[in-house]
Amino acid sequence: MDWEIFFTPYVQTVSELKVKLRGLRDQYEKNGEDSPIEFVTGRVKSQASIEEKIVRRHLDENRLSLDLQDIAGVRIMTKYVEDIYTVVDLLRQRTDFQILEERDYVTNAKPSGYRSYHIVIEYPVQMYSGELKVLAEIQVRTMAMNFWATVEHDLRYKHGELSDNLADRLTKLSESTFALDQELSEIRAVE
Amino acid sequence: MDWEIFFTPYVQTVSELKVKLRGLRDQYEKNGEDSPIEFVTGRVKSQASIEEKIVRRHLDENRLSLDLQDIAGVRIMTKYVEDIYTVVDLLRQRTDFQILEERDYVTNAKPSGYRSYHIVIEYPVQMYSGELKVLAEIQVRTMAMNFWATVEHDLRYKHGELSDNLADRLTKLSESTFALDQELSEIRAVE
Amino acid sequence: MDWEIFFTPYVQTVSELKVKLRGLRDQYEKNGEDSPIEFVTGRVKSQASIEEKIVRRHLDENRLSLDLQDIAGVRIMTKYVEDIYTVVDLLRQRTDFQILEERDYVTNAKPSGYRSYHIVIEYPVQMYSGELKVLAEIQVRTMAMNFWATVEHDLRYKHGELSDNLADRLTKLSESTFALDQELSEIRAVE
Amino acid sequence: MDWEIFFTPYVQTVSELKVKLRGLRDQYEKNGEDSPIEFVTGRVKSQASIEEKIVRRHLDENRLSLDLQDIAGVRIMTKYVEDIYTVVDLLRQRTDFQILEERDYVTNAKPSGYRSYHIVIEYPVQMYSGELKVLAEIQVRTMAMNFWATVEHDLRYKHGELSDNLADRLTKLSESTFALDQELSEIRAVE
Repeated sequence: MDWEIFFTPYVQTVSELKVKLRGLRDQYEKNGEDSPIEFVTGRVKSQASIEEKIVRRHLDENRLSLDLQDIAGVRIMTKYVEDIYTVVDLLRQRTDFQILEERDYVTNAKPSGYRSYHIVIEYPVQMYSGELKVLAEIQVRTMAMNFWATVEHDLRYKHGELSDNLADRLTKLSESTFALDQELSEIRAVE
Repeated sequence: MDWEIFFTPYVQTVSELKVKLRGLRDQYEKNGEDSPIEFVTGRVKSQASIEEKIVRRHLDENRLSLDLQDIAGVRIMTKYVEDIYTVVDLLRQRTDFQILEERDYVTNAKPSGYRSYHIVIEYPVQMYSGELKVLAEIQVRTMAMNFWATVEHDLRYKHGELSDNLADRLTKLSESTFALDQELSEIRAVE
Repeated sequence: MDWEIFFTPYVQTVSELKVKLRGLRDQYEKNGEDSPIEFVTGRVKSQASIEEKIVRRHLDENRLSLDLQDIAGVRIMTKYVEDIYTVVDLLRQRTDFQILEERDYVTNAKPSGYRSYHIVIEYPVQMYSGELKVLAEIQVRTMAMNFWATVEHDLRYKHGELSDNLADRLTKLSESTFALDQELSEIRAVE
Repeated sequence: MDWEIFFTPYVQTVSELKVKLRGLRDQYEKNGEDSPIEFVTGRVKSQASIEEKIVRRHLDENRLSLDLQDIAGVRIMTKYVEDIYTVVDLLRQRTDFQILEERDYVTNAKPSGYRSYHIVIEYPVQMYSGELKVLAEIQVRTMAMNFWATVEHDLRYKHGELSDNLADRLTKLSESTFALDQELSEIRAVE
């Protein structure tokens, strides 16, 4: 499998989505309005990570572009929980890609404590051989949720399987983190 | 007139087109194929230049987005004349914008000696208030044509109206420049 | 005062520092090592913000480059509190700028609850007229501290002077945020 | 040999030099002055190209960073021949790197017809393990010279060894190209 060629449309998709979504933020700024988008990051899933998934989930190499929805991934960070839904609405009204699926892990956190709003899109990317429809995942989360998800991913990555104790402490940490977001929402509502 | 807000969709359009067209070049490279695209530049027309046009051509400020087709401008440079038409075909097959007009100043140079292939497109840019259709101009030219157009623009800009003598020498220079492109085409055909 | 010319060396300084500090992160990644740097942002202080400071602090326009240390500002975010000091050591060993001052608001939070490690540097930037020494501020903080500082800044900006109640709730929020960082440090120490 | 690690300081050097030299161009623009720099490109020599040189020139893998001066390469394009020397003077006055060697292939073209001004520098790049001095090559050339060098490189690369006939036609093409630059210098001198 020629990974460099395989990755090409995903690299392109992530580049385009980053420019597009960061542009939204700039538009708010230039209009002197609050942006619901604080910052945007993006990445293409690593070859190592895809190969690990192929083994673990018995994937067919020829169906990767269908079976893996997050080879191209973009993340939008917001200041407040409410902003997440504003961003989701912004994404729904766009005509440059199609939303295939939404999963609200903000309201319904995963058992680990993970919170984010996930949107799977079909993005038409123009290759020199013609248009190609690529799956991509957009994650929308507050900065606090991003803090937790980043350190949890780091610890999980370093320790392989997490001990029950560590997993438990991280889940509690997630609850405390989300409490900050909720306290913030209250503060804003009062003011 | 709030120029910063006026320019916002054009700045965004140029950013997106640059990422998209540079991406095409990378695709060729990763596939180990010759790219007809050598490099891509882009710019938004300056406020001074638009204001000058408003005066000179008696334009209505409220119709600028219709009357000026090159507020957003992207330029694609190729090595060989033949590559220009390959690039034009690539642009015609894209589904992310619509071509409104094509003008072939490569085969039919302007009296000044200017050569380039011009394509006016309607580009749908996603603003936070919804989709906006923006006019943009894509110029496709060889590196030799770009050399001439750049120095001609520089001299014209510095001297205001060109003297007949200077204009004449520049037109001759354009012919010599195009002769290089033609000699190159011959060399490639023989080899 | 021609602000565009005034800002030129600061814009350049921020661009260079971002490329340099983001490069550090990439170096760790390519060597397969944990990076103490999670992400880097940068900005040049806005003209409005400088003008406000000139009025409030009775600054002399001709001494701005000496009196304001944070016209050029770069921010480094880490996952863990410990990483802050690793980054500070990295900055101390660099030979491409000189550290003038360090202020540790991580250990000694400001009364508001603000935490970050501040470093003022003298950065030699090469202008076409020769070398210019520019003051710049590098802030190093955890993602959790960055979360708090961002929302605090946003609320303060929107409300002008904060009410005692809001200020109080934000200070408490800072304590809860820092508790997350400390809990994380404990978790890592145990594992 | 771990090429990714080997390339790290060179990738960083090229990124920094591009930001620095493009910044120079912006400075001229913001000051409303003509920039002698038209555009800047950069690249790190490919692994394939280095491996080919190791074989052809019997290089020692452990001495590559000393024996190859152009692993990191940056190119500055100017409009006019005179601008080349203005840029060289700009580079000589910089304090962020040291010039080791200059070769003027503008006045003294190579037998092939190649023209450019080459400067080998020692650039101090800050790695997380400390400062590293890296060799890099800066090429300064007019847009016309760049046109010729680009197509010559392309044809040479495609045909391997050039036939005498092709080499000869390309050398003649170089002379015609340089004649354009000289005609331009005359035009400017008259006006």
